[in-house]
Amino acid sequence: MRINRNYQALPKNYLFAEIDARVTAFLKEYPGTELIRMGIGDVTRPLPPAITGALHAAVDEMGDAAAFRGYPPYEGYDFLRNAIASYYADFGVNIRPDEIVVSDGAKSDTGNLVDLFARENTVLICDPVYPVYLDTNLMDGRKIEILSATKENNFLPMPDGRDVDIIYLCSPNNPTGAVYSKEQLSVWVDYALEKHAVIIFDAAYEAFVSDPSLPRSIFAVDGARECAIECASFSKTAGFTGVRLSYTVVPDELKVPEDGREVSLRQMWVKRQSTKLNGVAYIIQRAGEAAFSAEGRVQLRRNLAHYKENAFVISQTMRKLGLYFTGGTHSPYIWFECPDHQNSWDFFDALLRQSHIVCTPGAGFGRCGEGFIRLTSFGGAQQTREAMERLKALLG
Amino acid sequence: MRINRNYQALPKNYLFAEIDARVTAFLKEYPGTELIRMGIGDVTRPLPPAITGALHAAVDEMGDAAAFRGYPPYEGYDFLRNAIASYYADFGVNIRPDEIVVSDGAKSDTGNLVDLFARENTVLICDPVYPVYLDTNLMDGRKIEILSATKENNFLPMPDGRDVDIIYLCSPNNPTGAVYSKEQLSVWVDYALEKHAVIIFDAAYEAFVSDPSLPRSIFAVDGARECAIECASFSKTAGFTGVRLSYTVVPDELKVPEDGREVSLRQMWVKRQSTKLNGVAYIIQRAGEAAFSAEGRVQLRRNLAHYKENAFVISQTMRKLGLYFTGGTHSPYIWFECPDHQNSWDFFDALLRQSHIVCTPGAGFGRCGEGFIRLTSFGGAQQTREAMERLKALLG
Repeated sequence: MRINRNYQALPKNYLFAEIDARVTAFLKEYPGTELIRMGIGDVTRPLPPAITGALHAAVDEMGDAAAFRGYPPYEGYDFLRNAIASYYADFGVNIRPDEIVVSDGAKSDTGNLVDLFARENTVLICDPVYPVYLDTNLMDGRKIEILSATKENNFLPMPDGRDVDIIYLCSPNNPTGAVYSKEQLSVWVDYALEKHAVIIFDAAYEAFVSDPSLPRSIFAVDGARECAIECASFSKTAGFTGVRLSYTVVPDELKVPEDGREVSLRQMWVKRQSTKLNGVAYIIQRAGEAAFSAEGRVQLRRNLAHYKENAFVISQTMRKLGLYFTGGTHSPYIWFECPDHQNSWDFFDALLRQSHIVCTPGAGFGRCGEGFIRLTSFGGAQQTREAMERLKALLG
Repeated sequence: MRINRNYQALPKNYLFAEIDARVTAFLKEYPGTELIRMGIGDVTRPLPPAITGALHAAVDEMGDAAAFRGYPPYEGYDFLRNAIASYYADFGVNIRPDEIVVSDGAKSDTGNLVDLFARENTVLICDPVYPVYLDTNLMDGRKIEILSATKENNFLPMPDGRDVDIIYLCSPNNPTGAVYSKEQLSVWVDYALEKHAVIIFDAAYEAFVSDPSLPRSIFAVDGARECAIECASFSKTAGFTGVRLSYTVVPDELKVPEDGREVSLRQMWVKRQSTKLNGVAYIIQRAGEAAFSAEGRVQLRRNLAHYKENAFVISQTMRKLGLYFTGGTHSPYIWFECPDHQNSWDFFDALLRQSHIVCTPGAGFGRCGEGFIRLTSFGGAQQTREAMERLKALLG
C-alpha cells in the first residue's frame, strides 16, 4: 500500500503549537501571571435560553419511543432548511430550501467540497489565508496560485486576470476582518464567469456585518448563482463552535458541461455527502432552527452586540495609537500593523512578556501576514478593556 | 474548472429509491395497507435515561457562562476516549486512549480514510457490500478487486492470494450478518501483512456479538496492530443513528516506510481530521460517555436484547421454513435465500404485495446478493412476530 504523498509535502503549520510553546515557557518563568487571551477565534458566550430550551425539548423527544428519530435526512431536516432560507430572505437574498445542504461545520464543507473537482484544476487563494483552503488542496496535489492581500489594497485583493479554476473568498475575512463591497464582489463574480471558474465563498462571519449595503452573501451579487458555492455556519452567528452546525448553498444554476451534458454541482455535492456522511444530529438541527426563531435572534443579537462592543473598544484603541488596521467593524477580528516595523513574532513576544496578552502573529496566516497581528473580540468586556489599557501603556 | 469525472462513472445505485418507488406505487393501488417495514438498518428504540440525562446536563453546561465549551479537541475529549478504551478493555482488547480518534459516524470515517492513501492502490471489496466502501473508492478512481461471498463460503470469503493494497472487512457483516471467527480474521491479518496491505475493519455491529470466542475487534487478533484500522460506532451499540458519534482506532504500530522514514498513519489521520473537521459536539460526546457508564450499559443492554429477540424470532422462522440464511445470532441482520430460486426483486414484490412486508433485495448490495433478501430486527416485537406469521402463510 502506498500513502498519499501529498500529505508529506504539506507545510508544517506550527502556528498554534508555537503560540502554546511560547506561552507555556513564559508561564514557567513567571508562574501565576494572569494572561488575557485574544488569540483564538472561539466564542465564549453561553448558548441563550431559546437554544438550550430547543435542545432540551429535542433530547426529550429522543428519549420517547413515539418521537424518537433515527438517521437524519442527508441534506438536513426541512424545518432547518426552511429556517435558513427565511434567514437569507431577511437580508434580501433569495435561496430555495432545496438549494441548502446542512452539515457539521463550514470547515468540513470548505474542505470536502474540493472532492467534486478534478485534481488538475488551479486554485486561487488570497494571502493571508485561513489555512484550510490551502492545506485541503495541497492534500490533493492541486496547483495553487497566491494573490497578495496587503496594506496597499486594504487587504481586499482584486482579480488580476490570471487563469484559475477554483477561487476561495472569505468576507468578512479571517484573519483580516476586511469586507468586500458589493461592487468588489461583482468584479470577482464577473471574473469567475469569464474564466469558467467556481467561487467557494466562506460567509462564516456574515452575522457581524452591520451595514446593510455590504453583502452578507455572495448571492447578493448578480451572476453569483452561475459560479458560486457559499459555506456558512452557526459557529459565530449563534455561538455554535462547540455545537457543530453549518450549511452550504449550491444554486440550481451551477451546472458544468461534461461529455455533452450538464452536470449539477449540487447533485454531485449531495452524492458526496450521502456517500460519506450520515447527516447531522436531530437535536443539533433543532438548536439551529431555534437560533433563527424570533426569540433566538433577539437573544443571539445580545451575544453579537457583546463581541461587537469589544471589537469597537479594540478599534478605538488602534485609532488612538495611530496603528494601521482592518476589521473590527463588521468582523470579530482586528488585524493591525506592528509598530516600528517589528515582525509578527517579535511583537507577539513583546505583547506576551510585557503586557501579558496572547495574540496571533499574522505571519502564521501566510507571507503577507508578516508584520501584522490578529486580535479577536471574543473575550470578556472587562478583559478586553484591560488588554487595551495594557497595549496603550506598552506603546504610549 | 473541471469536475471530478469519477463521479460520473459511479454506478447508479437506485436501491432505496427503487424500494420507495415500488412501495409508493403499491400504496397508491391499495391505500391504507398496513406495511411492516424490515428494510432499513435504522434503530427504533428511544435513548435510555442514562443518555438523555447526560445530554440534558451537558446542554445546561452549554447555557452557563462558567461551564460553556467552544471548539472541541480534534481527536475527541479525553473523557470519551478514556471511556472507549475501557469499553475495549472489557472485552479483552487493549487500546490506548490516544490511539482513538472520535468522529461523527463510521460511515464518515470509512469514507474519509481513503484520503490517506495513493490513488494507485488496489482495493479489495467483498460482494455483497455496504456500498460506501465501493463508491468512496470509485470517487477517487481506484482499481477495485471483488471477492465473492456466497452460500458456498457461508458468506465469509477468505483471501485468495491476489495482490491488493487496501482491504475492507465488515464483521458482523452488513448486509449478511455473517461473523468471522478469530482464526479466519487471523488468516486475513497474515495476508495483509504479507501483501503490505492495510485492513479497514468496520466493527459497527460488534455489540451484537454474544459469543465471547468471536472477535468484536480486529485487534483481538495478533498482528492486527501492524496492518489494521478499525471503525466503530455508537449507532447500533447505543442507538445513536440520529445522534451521530463514532470512533476510529489507528494503532501506534501502523507505520508506512516513505522516503526512508516511517510515516505514522495515525498522524496522517489526525492531520486529515484537524484540517477538514472541527471535532464532534461536546453534548454528543457526553452522551457517548454515558453510553459506556455502568448505568448506560445496563439500559442499552435492554435495547440490544429487544433487537436480538426479534432476530431470534426471524431466525427461528427461517429454520422452520427450511430457508438457507446467515446472521441473526450475532447481528441485527438476517440474510436469507429466496425460495424456489426466485430473484431478489421478484421476491421483494411478493413480500410487499402478498404479505405487506418491506424488505431489502440482496441484489442491491452487489452481484452475489442476487437471490437473497436482507431483513432487519430493528422493528417492534409485535410487528416482527406478525411479519413472520405472514411469511409462514406466504410460503407454508
